[in-house]
Parts: sequence; C-alpha cells; structure tokens
Amino acid sequence: MGGDNAPQKNIEGASLALFSYPGAKFIFFGDKEKINPILSKYPNLKKVSDVQHTLNVVSDTAKPSQALRAGRNSSMRLAINAVHEGKASAVVSSGNTGAYMAMSKFVLKTFPGIHRPAIATLIPSATSEFVAMDLGANIICDAKNLVQFSILGSAYAKSVLGISNPRVGILNVGEEEQKGLPILREAADKLYEKKDINFIGFVEADELFTGVVDVVVTDGFTGNLVLKTIEGTAKLIKTFLTKAFSSSLRSKIGYLISKPALQYLSKRINPSHYNGAIFLGLNGIAIKSHGKTDAVGFSSAISVAIDMMQYDFKASVIKMIDDASSS
Amino acid sequence: MGGDNAPQKNIEGASLALFSYPGAKFIFFGDKEKINPILSKYPNLKKVSDVQHTLNVVSDTAKPSQALRAGRNSSMRLAINAVHEGKASAVVSSGNTGAYMAMSKFVLKTFPGIHRPAIATLIPSATSEFVAMDLGANIICDAKNLVQFSILGSAYAKSVLGISNPRVGILNVGEEEQKGLPILREAADKLYEKKDINFIGFVEADELFTGVVDVVVTDGFTGNLVLKTIEGTAKLIKTFLTKAFSSSLRSKIGYLISKPALQYLSKRINPSHYNGAIFLGLNGIAIKSHGKTDAVGFSSAISVAIDMMQYDFKASVIKMIDDASSS
Repeated sequence: MGGDNAPQKNIEGASLALFSYPGAKFIFFGDKEKINPILSKYPNLKKVSDVQHTLNVVSDTAKPSQALRAGRNSSMRLAINAVHEGKASAVVSSGNTGAYMAMSKFVLKTFPGIHRPAIATLIPSATSEFVAMDLGANIICDAKNLVQFSILGSAYAKSVLGISNPRVGILNVGEEEQKGLPILREAADKLYEKKDINFIGFVEADELFTGVVDVVVTDGFTGNLVLKTIEGTAKLIKTFLTKAFSSSLRSKIGYLISKPALQYLSKRINPSHYNGAIFLGLNGIAIKSHGKTDAVGFSSAISVAIDMMQYDFKASVIKMIDDASSS
Repeated sequence: MGGDNAPQKNIEGASLALFSYPGAKFIFFGDKEKINPILSKYPNLKKVSDVQHTLNVVSDTAKPSQALRAGRNSSMRLAINAVHEGKASAVVSSGNTGAYMAMSKFVLKTFPGIHRPAIATLIPSATSEFVAMDLGANIICDAKNLVQFSILGSAYAKSVLGISNPRVGILNVGEEEQKGLPILREAADKLYEKKDINFIGFVEADELFTGVVDVVVTDGFTGNLVLKTIEGTAKLIKTFLTKAFSSSLRSKIGYLISKPALQYLSKRINPSHYNGAIFLGLNGIAIKSHGKTDAVGFSSAISVAIDMMQYDFKASVIKMIDDASSS
C-alpha cells in the first residue's frame, strides 16, 4: 500500500516480474477492496497470488517508533512477519523507509556479529556497477559499524553479484591516509588487517564512477546525500538535454535520428532500472523500492529480491565474521 | 606554478580574461625562466603584467602545516602577501588547496566575527545557479560555523550575484525538522531567529538542482563529497552519451545534426565554466582554481576574482554580523 500510485504500481510491477521469473508467487498485503479489482486485470498474476487483507497502513510521515507501536496490523508489518514465519521468501515495499527499516530489524533481527543493518544499492559506473552502502539507515556510525558494512557489502558482491574478490573502499575526501574524519581512519586500519576483505583504502566521490571499487562504504548521512546528488545531477542533465534537443527543428531531427542510441543512455541512467535497495544484515530478505517509482521500477525491486533468494548470502557473511573474530 | 600544465594554462587563462576585462593587470609569481618565454607569446597580456621571480613552490602533497613553515618564499605565499600588502586586489591559484587555505587564513585573517573561512562555488540548477559551501576547508564543523557560513553565503549572493533576498538552506537527509544530525538542527534553530537571513530550512541533495535555494550550507566533508559526486556523475553521463552517439553511423549523423544544440548542454555542465572557488570570510579576495582545469577554466577563476572586486562583499558581511550580535 506504500508509495505513490499504490497498489496499482505494485501489482503491475509484480505482473512484469512474473514475465522474467515465471515460477514466482506473490502475497499482497493491504486493502482487498483496492487490490482485488486491479489484480483481476492481470489473470496470470492472479493465479499465483494471495491477498492478505488489512486496512491498517503505515503513513509516509509516521516516525519509526510510532510505526512500531501502532502498526502491528499494518500491511507493512504483516508482510515482514510473513518472511519471519517462512510464509514468504522476501518482502518488497515502497512505503515509509524509516518505519520499514525499524520493523524489519525488530521482526527479522540482525545476523549474529552484525549490530546494525545497512541499506545498500547498485549504482552504475563507466565499466560496470558498484554496491553503495549505507544509504540512510544509520545517520551516525562508528568505525565498527563501517567495518561490519564492509563485510556485508563484500559478501553481497561475492555471493549475489559473483565477483570473486570484490574491491572494497571507504568514501572519503582524499585518498591519503591522513585525510578525512577520524572514524574513517580507524575503520580503514581495522579493514587493512582483515585478510578476507580486499580493502583498497579511501576512495573519492568522483572516482566511484570510473569503476575503481566493487563496494563503497560510508555512513547513512553521507550515503543518502551522495545517492540523492547522483539522482539530482542525472535529472538536471536530462532536463538540459531535452531542452537542447527541442531548441530548434534541426536538433529535433537530430534527436529522432539518434533516438535508438539515446535509449541506451536512458536505460543506463534510468533510476527505475536501478530501483530496489537491500536491507543487508537481516535474517530475511527485505527490499525497499523508491516511493516515487513506477511499475517498471517496482518490478526491478522484485527482481533484486528474487536474485537474492537464489544465493546463500547469510552463510557468506557468517563465514567472514567467524574468520574475522578468530583472526 | 600550481596545478596541471602550469604556468602555461595560468598565463593563457589570464590572456583570455584580459579579453573580457580589458582594464585588468596581472602579476605572475614563480620561475621567470618558465614564465617569460610563455608570456612573450601574449604581447597584449605582457604589456599589463609583472613577473615576481621565485623558485620556491608549494608541492601538491605538502601538508598545510609544512607549507606554512617552509613556504615563506613560495610563489603561492608571495601572491597572497601581495593581496595583504595592497599590491594586488585578488589572488588566483590552482595549487595545493589545503596549503592555499592555511596560508590565506594566516596572512589575510578572517573578518571580525567569522571564526573560519569557507570554500564556496556556484553550481548550476534547472532554473539558474546556487552558491554551495563549505566545499572542504572545514572537515568537522559546529552549529556556529554553519551559521557563519550562512551569513557569508547570503552576503555573497546579495552583493556579488545581486539577489535581493537570497534563500538559504542547510543540506540534510530530509526536510522534516527532526531529521539528520543534531548540529544541523541546532544551526537551523539559530538561523530561524536571524531576521536578516531568509532561511528556508533543510534541503535534500536532489532538490538543490531544481532551484529551491540560492545558497546551500553544509560541512566541508559533506560539501566536498557532494561536489565530487556531481562532477563524477556528469562525467559518467558524458561517457554514456559519447558511447551512444558513436554506436552506429545513424547515431553519428544524428549527433552532427544536433551538435549546435548539444553545445548548450556542454556549456551548462562544463566544469571549466564553473571553475573558481572562493575563500569566503577573509580580508582579501583569494580564488581557488581546480588543479586539473585548462586555460578556459583558469580564466573563469580570474573572472570570479574580478567580479568580486567590484562589490563590497566585506561590508555586507560585517553588517549582517553586527545585526546578528545586536539582535
């Protein structure tokens, strides 16, 4: 029930995901009066779907603590419970991020050895893409959190993305070891000691996009600002590009001729294509879709969830934590 | 002598700036054996230029404290001294940022009531452009610093950009008042009380580019990361765009037809066009050029310096500080 244009975009998104993953099954949590009429328009999806009715919804403005107290029967909470109870393999929501993270943490609990879960996502680079985290779950972090995020990110890149020895960097304002905030230097010192993490040191924000890292780690405050700066810059350039192409008849013709090629660009920088942030470090798969995304974006978030189910991410993390504590 | 391809780009940049500002005069500080042969290639510039010879140069890797101790006769220091002694109206350098800031602060001193200078620059938005600060001078800030940066940024937007009632925002991960770091809320509370600052509250990183603020304030760590994220994203999209246009004969033809319009885009997102960061809050004009810029970029930095000379920025700041302390 969360985000703009729900539950239309969520149901339509599921129907799109079903094309790519014909074995998938769905449970929709929310108001059946709103869900059922839409679901009827997608007969293939309807065949593999259940609806769990509830009228309680977490609002976009609810604080995490309020949502935890008052949202026990909310669509969001019931969906998370379904993962905990083994009735679902993953939960995908485009509702209130703070409430979703708090509830997921409360119900699913973190892995042993991980104090706080982090929000991670994939971001495109010139050569491929990289995992970025934390994107807003932990506004203030200590060095220990950053080290744990590095373990989570590295395990994700290994198990889900199939990168054998992922390069992990810490985001900083310079590459030199004396640069930046004290907690970053403390985290770097700890990471250099970990033999199962391929820590490459500090990385600057402009270098990320050249493909120098597979995983970049930062606190949730900085990560959120960097992610939103990328979104804002991409949108600004798109505005300028549209203006340029529509500025004269000549440029309009140029656009029509170049259109197939420009669709490549559009796909690479389209936020829908990269939608689906992962709550890493929880006993269960919880994926956050952008609230403003469309059905295509919501189907991307479902794809992230299904991809993750196929790999034993948790075992990979536990192994690295055990190695770290025994070393 | 600082930055890539110096002193060629600096001298060529000055000759470009002289076209726009025919009354300008220049003093070049550095190795005369390197400067004079280049200067001879620009006879109009040579007529209005002096060369102050020194072989001592601040290296790109020198720490600020080292540069302060060992760089008393460096080209950078002598150029800053010239501003302090009234022999120059402004200094422009593309050398080591940390050393340049430390020396400028030591020699020029901050305005009364301003504890620390900040680095500011202009960033394009969909509607116009905005002043962003601090971009790296102060990695760790307190609420008082952020309030002073807001005064400096607001005074700059008023006196130099001619915006009568500049909208000032603090960068944060959400607009709601309970969001983000405690020092941001503390700074916001103080700013709401200041009657001569048009404080509009918190602003998110993606909103900046829609033109909601004239001045955005943050600490130097975050500001530096946001600025470099913009640069990296713009460069990445340019790479994708070039790839798209060169992917087929058809798209190459489309590019040729659209080229004049695309130059508009290129100009709007070209870092050279926006080169020239200002050290705000010092008794004297000191402008930092990007080390990797070209002659066109260096001339932009010189333009920023000359624009600033024409306005009484200091008086505008002092007035706001006096109003603030008397209220």
